[in-house]
Amino acid sequence: MKSRVYLDYNATALLRVEARDAMISAMDVVGNPSSVHSEGRAAKAIVEKARAQVAAALGAEGADIVFTSGATEAAALACIGRKLDGAAIEHDAVMAWVSDGLVVDGAGHVTVTHPEGSALQQANSETGVVQDLPQGLAVSDMTQAFGKLPFAFNWSGAQMALISAHKLGGPKGVGALVMKRGTDLAAQIRGGGQEMGRRSGTENVIGIAGFGAAAEAAARDLDAGIWDRVEKLRNILEIAIEAGAKETILVGKSARRLPNTSCLATPGWKGETQVMQMDLAGFAISAGSACSSGKVRASRVLTAMGYDEAVAASAIRVSLGPATTEDEVLRFAETWLEKYHRHRARAA
Amino acid sequence: MKSRVYLDYNATALLRVEARDAMISAMDVVGNPSSVHSEGRAAKAIVEKARAQVAAALGAEGADIVFTSGATEAAALACIGRKLDGAAIEHDAVMAWVSDGLVVDGAGHVTVTHPEGSALQQANSETGVVQDLPQGLAVSDMTQAFGKLPFAFNWSGAQMALISAHKLGGPKGVGALVMKRGTDLAAQIRGGGQEMGRRSGTENVIGIAGFGAAAEAAARDLDAGIWDRVEKLRNILEIAIEAGAKETILVGKSARRLPNTSCLATPGWKGETQVMQMDLAGFAISAGSACSSGKVRASRVLTAMGYDEAVAASAIRVSLGPATTEDEVLRFAETWLEKYHRHRARAA
Repeated sequence: MKSRVYLDYNATALLRVEARDAMISAMDVVGNPSSVHSEGRAAKAIVEKARAQVAAALGAEGADIVFTSGATEAAALACIGRKLDGAAIEHDAVMAWVSDGLVVDGAGHVTVTHPEGSALQQANSETGVVQDLPQGLAVSDMTQAFGKLPFAFNWSGAQMALISAHKLGGPKGVGALVMKRGTDLAAQIRGGGQEMGRRSGTENVIGIAGFGAAAEAAARDLDAGIWDRVEKLRNILEIAIEAGAKETILVGKSARRLPNTSCLATPGWKGETQVMQMDLAGFAISAGSACSSGKVRASRVLTAMGYDEAVAASAIRVSLGPATTEDEVLRFAETWLEKYHRHRARAA
Repeated sequence: MKSRVYLDYNATALLRVEARDAMISAMDVVGNPSSVHSEGRAAKAIVEKARAQVAAALGAEGADIVFTSGATEAAALACIGRKLDGAAIEHDAVMAWVSDGLVVDGAGHVTVTHPEGSALQQANSETGVVQDLPQGLAVSDMTQAFGKLPFAFNWSGAQMALISAHKLGGPKGVGALVMKRGTDLAAQIRGGGQEMGRRSGTENVIGIAGFGAAAEAAARDLDAGIWDRVEKLRNILEIAIEAGAKETILVGKSARRLPNTSCLATPGWKGETQVMQMDLAGFAISAGSACSSGKVRASRVLTAMGYDEAVAASAIRVSLGPATTEDEVLRFAETWLEKYHRHRARAA
């Protein structure tokens, strides 16, 4: 039996060995970070070490980093009560709190007219399209870009950023809201006053330890150029698909994109069907954002870019990671093209 | 060097080996539970297994269990917008959302006049005092009782309950809101629609795996009677303290209490001072609730029970666990009494 091929890194990445080790090591520390005794201080030290690691990896030294249960909670914390505008390409976790008033062009770029009242993602999870963030931007979802693109929060122009551990090789269920120091913020989850009063609740010490270690490792790998190799593999994949399936649209290809992401729309062939067929053949990919609890629908991101429902419903996302090999990419292209030709034969 | 003695289980318990194993095993499962492919379904299966384990351990079969980042988040989810009444002995995470209108007596018992509009904890974290929950109670914080007392959510009379993994040997940063099926609840954290639309965000798969395993192990240990042994050790401790320190008050002793908790108030000797002195001597205990981010103040719980500020500020909490030994308890009593006599000599 051939081993499975995982090409859904934008849904969630493999746990990095550094994160695994840090988490297992944190399991031996018993204390509650709020306790003043030796055991409590040891637990607190783990959290603070991770905070420094995340700050360094994100170029957010001196900013406030509030650990949360993920980018979704961070989005609520950043956006509730602010009546921000956004574009319809934002993730559901942001769309829950912002308008869809900002305009998106066909390449996936968003025009921001009033940065201080707007939210704009740094990179899109479905298409990989990267935005130029305007100075003074209120909130940026940096979840997909963090660890894959070189940038610094402190130079990004954003007042607040949302990040997540599991997109860069940390555990699921941990994230952070990053804020320029002095940002006014009302806590949503209240009680013990942890995280400088911005987010109460005993800290996820083991998960936070994994986040810190993963962020550090991700920054190191980014510096070392591992995503250049991933980008080459992504390009090999796209050349193979383009050569074999003429009507397939490579969404966002004209824009600057994440190095690992391909969004392939093949009008008339449902994305969901492709995902299921490829799953049975041993490949994990997705249709639209994987954070949508298995809901089946046309991609809101693609319709916002001007594609019609038929195209939007036919999109799949293939997202590679540091562990992806050329053999995996070629096997994917071969298998997908086989299914594609069978689909065309049936449709004809 | 003598090894440290950890007597702060109510702040956070040692990670159970079953939880550790389940978490390490979950680290190898890459998928996002919202993804429909094989890897996603494997991650989803981990979450659903844990949900069944927690339901069985809590006697909450058939109830809705919404995993959260802890009991603090669950408290916000349960209480926001409901204008509930509570007593001043509730945990900070509940007090953030309820009034302190319910009356507490000197033994720590609360009188509930309108259960459907009230929140009442099942056991107090500082004193261990156990409440009789009235039928129809809106919300109960079962965090400290879960795993230490035999009871079933389904028979408790409560509509909703808050629970936490790390108080029973699971990881910190995971908890749940438990609800009778059909309870009306507006999500606070919105986005992908996870947890039946009640709580969005990619699930903390590793932590949830640990919660399920810990809950199952805790229920098994409770059935096997391990807390009877812990209760005997707690009683040995209290007899030794009472014999050696006549003016020390054993708060809540006349009430039914958790089997592992002693609240010792020694008027004139600050609880914080005792915690620091005992920490230096190798013992981890706490003054008041440990979830208060190191804030120093008189215990709100004790003042609500009618004790004056001087008594309330002198309280310490000693909380034992399944791994506590008689030798540890005797060493604690001996060391504490030594410090106590030194304090008396200085004060005289």
